[in-house]
Amino acid sequence: MTLQQIIREYQLGLLFQQGSFGLEKEGQRVDEQGNIVTTPHPKAFGSRRFHPYIQTDFAESQLELITPPNAKLEDSYRWLSAIHEVVLRSLPEDEYLFPLSMPAGLPPEAAIKVAQLDNPDDVAYREHLVAVYGKTKQMVSGIHYNFQLSSEFIRSIFPLQTDFADPIAFQNAIYMKLATNFLRYQWVLVYLLAASPTVEWQYFGGNAPLAAGQLVRSLRSSQYGYVNKPHIQVNHNSLADYVESLERLVAEGELIAEKEYYSNVRLRGAARVRTLLEKGVQYAEFRLFDLNPFSPYGIELTDAKFVHLFLLLMLWLDETADQHGVDLGKACLNQVALEHPLAETAFKAEGEALLTQLLAMLNDIHASEQDQQLVREKLAQFADPSQTIGGRMANALTQAGGYQAFGANLARQYKAQAFERFYALSAFDNMELSTQALLFDAIQQGINVDILDENDQFLALKFGDHLEYVKNGNMTSHDQYISPLIMENKVVTKKVLAKAGFNVPNSVEFTRADEAIAHYGLFEGKAVVIKPKSTNYGLGITIFQQGVSNRQDFAKAVEIAFREDKEIMVEDYLVGTEYRFFVLGDQTLAVLLRVPANVIGDGVHSVRELVALKNADPLRGDGSRSPLKKIALGEIELLQLKEQGLTPDSVPRKEQWVQLRANSNISTGGDSIDMTDEMHESYKQLAVGIANAMGAKVCGVDLIIPNLKQAAEPSLNSWGVIEANFNPMMMMHIFPYQGKSRQLTRDVIKMLFPELR
Amino acid sequence: MTLQQIIREYQLGLLFQQGSFGLEKEGQRVDEQGNIVTTPHPKAFGSRRFHPYIQTDFAESQLELITPPNAKLEDSYRWLSAIHEVVLRSLPEDEYLFPLSMPAGLPPEAAIKVAQLDNPDDVAYREHLVAVYGKTKQMVSGIHYNFQLSSEFIRSIFPLQTDFADPIAFQNAIYMKLATNFLRYQWVLVYLLAASPTVEWQYFGGNAPLAAGQLVRSLRSSQYGYVNKPHIQVNHNSLADYVESLERLVAEGELIAEKEYYSNVRLRGAARVRTLLEKGVQYAEFRLFDLNPFSPYGIELTDAKFVHLFLLLMLWLDETADQHGVDLGKACLNQVALEHPLAETAFKAEGEALLTQLLAMLNDIHASEQDQQLVREKLAQFADPSQTIGGRMANALTQAGGYQAFGANLARQYKAQAFERFYALSAFDNMELSTQALLFDAIQQGINVDILDENDQFLALKFGDHLEYVKNGNMTSHDQYISPLIMENKVVTKKVLAKAGFNVPNSVEFTRADEAIAHYGLFEGKAVVIKPKSTNYGLGITIFQQGVSNRQDFAKAVEIAFREDKEIMVEDYLVGTEYRFFVLGDQTLAVLLRVPANVIGDGVHSVRELVALKNADPLRGDGSRSPLKKIALGEIELLQLKEQGLTPDSVPRKEQWVQLRANSNISTGGDSIDMTDEMHESYKQLAVGIANAMGAKVCGVDLIIPNLKQAAEPSLNSWGVIEANFNPMMMMHIFPYQGKSRQLTRDVIKMLFPELR
Repeated sequence: MTLQQIIREYQLGLLFQQGSFGLEKEGQRVDEQGNIVTTPHPKAFGSRRFHPYIQTDFAESQLELITPPNAKLEDSYRWLSAIHEVVLRSLPEDEYLFPLSMPAGLPPEAAIKVAQLDNPDDVAYREHLVAVYGKTKQMVSGIHYNFQLSSEFIRSIFPLQTDFADPIAFQNAIYMKLATNFLRYQWVLVYLLAASPTVEWQYFGGNAPLAAGQLVRSLRSSQYGYVNKPHIQVNHNSLADYVESLERLVAEGELIAEKEYYSNVRLRGAARVRTLLEKGVQYAEFRLFDLNPFSPYGIELTDAKFVHLFLLLMLWLDETADQHGVDLGKACLNQVALEHPLAETAFKAEGEALLTQLLAMLNDIHASEQDQQLVREKLAQFADPSQTIGGRMANALTQAGGYQAFGANLARQYKAQAFERFYALSAFDNMELSTQALLFDAIQQGINVDILDENDQFLALKFGDHLEYVKNGNMTSHDQYISPLIMENKVVTKKVLAKAGFNVPNSVEFTRADEAIAHYGLFEGKAVVIKPKSTNYGLGITIFQQGVSNRQDFAKAVEIAFREDKEIMVEDYLVGTEYRFFVLGDQTLAVLLRVPANVIGDGVHSVRELVALKNADPLRGDGSRSPLKKIALGEIELLQLKEQGLTPDSVPRKEQWVQLRANSNISTGGDSIDMTDEMHESYKQLAVGIANAMGAKVCGVDLIIPNLKQAAEPSLNSWGVIEANFNPMMMMHIFPYQGKSRQLTRDVIKMLFPELR
Repeated sequence: MTLQQIIREYQLGLLFQQGSFGLEKEGQRVDEQGNIVTTPHPKAFGSRRFHPYIQTDFAESQLELITPPNAKLEDSYRWLSAIHEVVLRSLPEDEYLFPLSMPAGLPPEAAIKVAQLDNPDDVAYREHLVAVYGKTKQMVSGIHYNFQLSSEFIRSIFPLQTDFADPIAFQNAIYMKLATNFLRYQWVLVYLLAASPTVEWQYFGGNAPLAAGQLVRSLRSSQYGYVNKPHIQVNHNSLADYVESLERLVAEGELIAEKEYYSNVRLRGAARVRTLLEKGVQYAEFRLFDLNPFSPYGIELTDAKFVHLFLLLMLWLDETADQHGVDLGKACLNQVALEHPLAETAFKAEGEALLTQLLAMLNDIHASEQDQQLVREKLAQFADPSQTIGGRMANALTQAGGYQAFGANLARQYKAQAFERFYALSAFDNMELSTQALLFDAIQQGINVDILDENDQFLALKFGDHLEYVKNGNMTSHDQYISPLIMENKVVTKKVLAKAGFNVPNSVEFTRADEAIAHYGLFEGKAVVIKPKSTNYGLGITIFQQGVSNRQDFAKAVEIAFREDKEIMVEDYLVGTEYRFFVLGDQTLAVLLRVPANVIGDGVHSVRELVALKNADPLRGDGSRSPLKKIALGEIELLQLKEQGLTPDSVPRKEQWVQLRANSNISTGGDSIDMTDEMHESYKQLAVGIANAMGAKVCGVDLIIPNLKQAAEPSLNSWGVIEANFNPMMMMHIFPYQGKSRQLTRDVIKMLFPELR
């Protein structure tokens, strides 16, 4: 039976569609005008010695963004998005990422630096390329698409076929079929997706093969692109032939290494191709794809999906192209590549037939309606070349005022887009901001990240063999399990801290209201807080700031507290301002003051207008995915205004502080103000001591301090600790409303990987 | 103003009643007949070098049980109970604790060994006592009662009085008043509470001061008790006089050390009394109390409460006894001590007047009705001496067949009581059994325990300066915070374990039923489990043990799983038996097999009778506070019986295994069977590796193993890991239904305190 028959008969369509996907995208760093820069690889991107996501290709200016492999193409695409956002936000202010495959604004050949990698072999290889092909030729960028079939799929069909007795030979034959059929029909993808219609005249050093103004489908995929000399021929009749012919070329010195053979398909899984014969091809790399200028990431997700389906078709076809077919395919490719992007292709009929077959396949394997629709759209583009990416680009170029300007415009636009929500990673916005921030830092610095559970904010970070798990951006192996358990329990927290000698407000716990009221005498005249033992949101709390002075008031407060919990506390009330100290290890890294939602009058705008102005801050959002929250003008805010004799339409005088909430929570529109540099050092050391007493490495400590400039003294009048938090918010420190940003997730990474750099 | 006036005027009655309480109880180790044993201090009690709870007094046979100080007398009493249970369960099988103050069954004087303590000074002091008083005289036991006033109370009244300008002098005067008034009126407590009416003739070496058969109230408190020579006189007119006179006696060699002065009150707070003048008396120790034979712990809680109220009265009184009053008090004491226990006391009128004053005081300070009732009962005992402890004992002695037999009977009875629920600590039974077990071990081994939160099972353990916190008996500083977070999430657990190379059943997750059903093809023919992602109690789980063979069944199972969670998993089904491995550090300490509730037929009894017989096991209880649960005969069990063609009245044939539940949970009457020694070592190592991969030090690992005798192999056919538990039950290993007990809490202590011993 053929593969197609097996899949149909055994209903393996689902397994057939599973696999693993990785994307690599090259791109030149350019200036505002689209000129390639000659600056070194930015230090912000960490070390290229190990960086899994951000590398350089041929030239020092040519970034290569690499996604990890994922079982879902969507996930690889999300990584591509995230790596782009990291790169664009980390580039020097005056640098951009050129979105076109063919370079523009090339520096003089002498000024082009090959990538300054640590490994001398890597540099030597590039110098060899310079000698053989020249520098400019190498400045081309594209997308490489890695695809692995599900190993379970291969395991499942192996016993159902009869052509191969050896599973490795079978696996290799499958991948060879994928490769040769791809080479036979790759022109289809060039017709539909290519986007290198022209290049500036310097690229060919005055020897331009195109007439002035002539546009083609893909210079990059044509004979004028970055290809081997024509006499370099490799035999595709079998993997054995392939290995032998490739090795011969290297042995004869025609190629400096196997990797100098620039096929649009590479069979992957071993450092040397011969090893594939024993170990089996693991995956294939498809290198055909021009950058799509209309996508900020060089490729649209739908096109990446189409490529996947196209690859499946290459396996589904009954025929397997031999060397003759491969040669035919190359000829078609070259011809299609040099067609005008708005012209019908010479092979229209073949293309339409192929995609019609693809539609039939999708039907047979019960593919989704979305996938079928996608293929139908591509099929229609054979009748209308203006809908292909090349066609659209040809039209756009004429309006853009030239190739370089077209690219530079888009480069600026895509960089600006990457800054729109500069505190988030768009593709991972379902996770908490602090996890997004950690992910940002890990991608930037080159720590391997495996997202174990998105809903649970669970990451595995790896550097070399060193593996660390992180939850919520701050929960790690460095904290002891007992620490959060201590902090979860206010009574235990206080006992532990009091034992360790820290200033803790005294408190008495009660389990019955009558018992509490009977103890009124203990509290008469004292400033106390009456609160439920375990709620956290301010519910049920009564404060007698001036001292409790009658039994009825006290009884009422007790009753209110008991509505929220079975156990209540009567606690000394501390006078002063509450600050949040973020402790990591032996350091207080940030101190924050939280101020209730407010606006400040200017004598001109109404409260409503002032709120709108303040809410315009990009840091303020409505949902949970922004560092600050928009100020509402709801019931509670109106009441608060009323107490100040104001309405939303009042115009407060200049400098008038208008408070809109009683509580200072960030979640109700409060301001976060960084006070790290203002706070007296002694309190920072106290916070560290408090965290240490509970065995915590990462800890948010809330201190009440009357005077932050004065050194801490031993008494409760100088300071007191209210509570400690084992999952302290980091975003309010990273993106405060006022004051310096404290990039805490970087410090978490530094704590986990002290060996980094 | 007097203290009494201040308390009344400023409503300080509540503060006045607060304080700190500690109890020390001596007792002889005896054999079944009540003879004092000559065996060494049991090794089970750890080292006397540091033991805070279990020490020896004068003789090697004389245990001293010491509670920590507590703000609530009830808590000290609970500690006294717990220490008793630990001691009684740890004694050699043929040893008991003698419940009477005056010894019986004395060994020959030469055979009495003084306590074999490490500190040579301690031994030398005892040898001195032997020389001065003889050995037998020292074999008397009693209770010392430590009482500290609330420091807040003293701080509150200090500014309200005018007699003292210095707070330390004021504090010392308060405690001196307490001491001298106590010495003046202590006879009242002897009348009510004394219980040393006689002693065996050997005690006085043939010089018995009592006539044969004569009973008195308290030999121990009389001039024939364990008292200083009559010429040893200390001046109680002021603390300064007290210090000076005591120091003089030591300087003159009348006493070998200050502590040789056997007053019924000792002022505490410094190693040498002189220091008290500067530092202030911290608390007072009252040493008057005979062991109450009617209480298993030597004193009833109500009597301890009465003592507290009596002490408060000593402060409340307007007068302060001077040396004259103290001498008068001693005379009264001696007279009352030698009265017959059933006779009216000579000082009845004074006693009644005093307790009437006490009632008035209780009224003034708003004491509880319970307290008032207690005092009323004591007051009534002046009219009816037979209700005093001494009176009751006098009556009981005549029925018991002699003093020693009376004591030996009770000793056996109290030891048996301590074994009734041998797996629990009665006084701390509100905590989980595993925390009770840990508490037991800590008390036994002499680790300081501070109970931070009973409801939350939160303990602080301390050995020397080494402090450790423990929650639920097994959550400690040794586990990383990230470990429980990994284990809490089944998906993350599997990813982490798979990454680390352990056999994990493959699974696919779905968030929509239609999506899951569309993937039916992936699972057809496979043995799979379909389950909700996060529930733990077996709800929503369907198992296709023989492979899923039609789409409808699969769809039904998917639907059932989605009823329980928003996300479901389809997981490979593993064939074999599930075992729980308890891992601590680098060792698997216990392996347990859980078997569903069942009975085994004997051909005679009905199922109902067999269940009743099995439920009679003391390990089986109804609530949450027993290691095993009683088997119910409810709906589910009846259904299970029906499936086997049985009813509760069927009589199963001999050896017939009757299953009463489908699930193997201990909580539904399942049996726990220790398999630690049966399990092949290779699986134990795997369990350790699994725990380590998640960074866990304490971990329950559930493995499915088809053949526990065969070494583990790498494939899922040999073993698979189902899940891991960060809060593994320990009781089922400590008290299994069958097999060896694994005392895991001891290992937890060993892990936390490797320096111990």
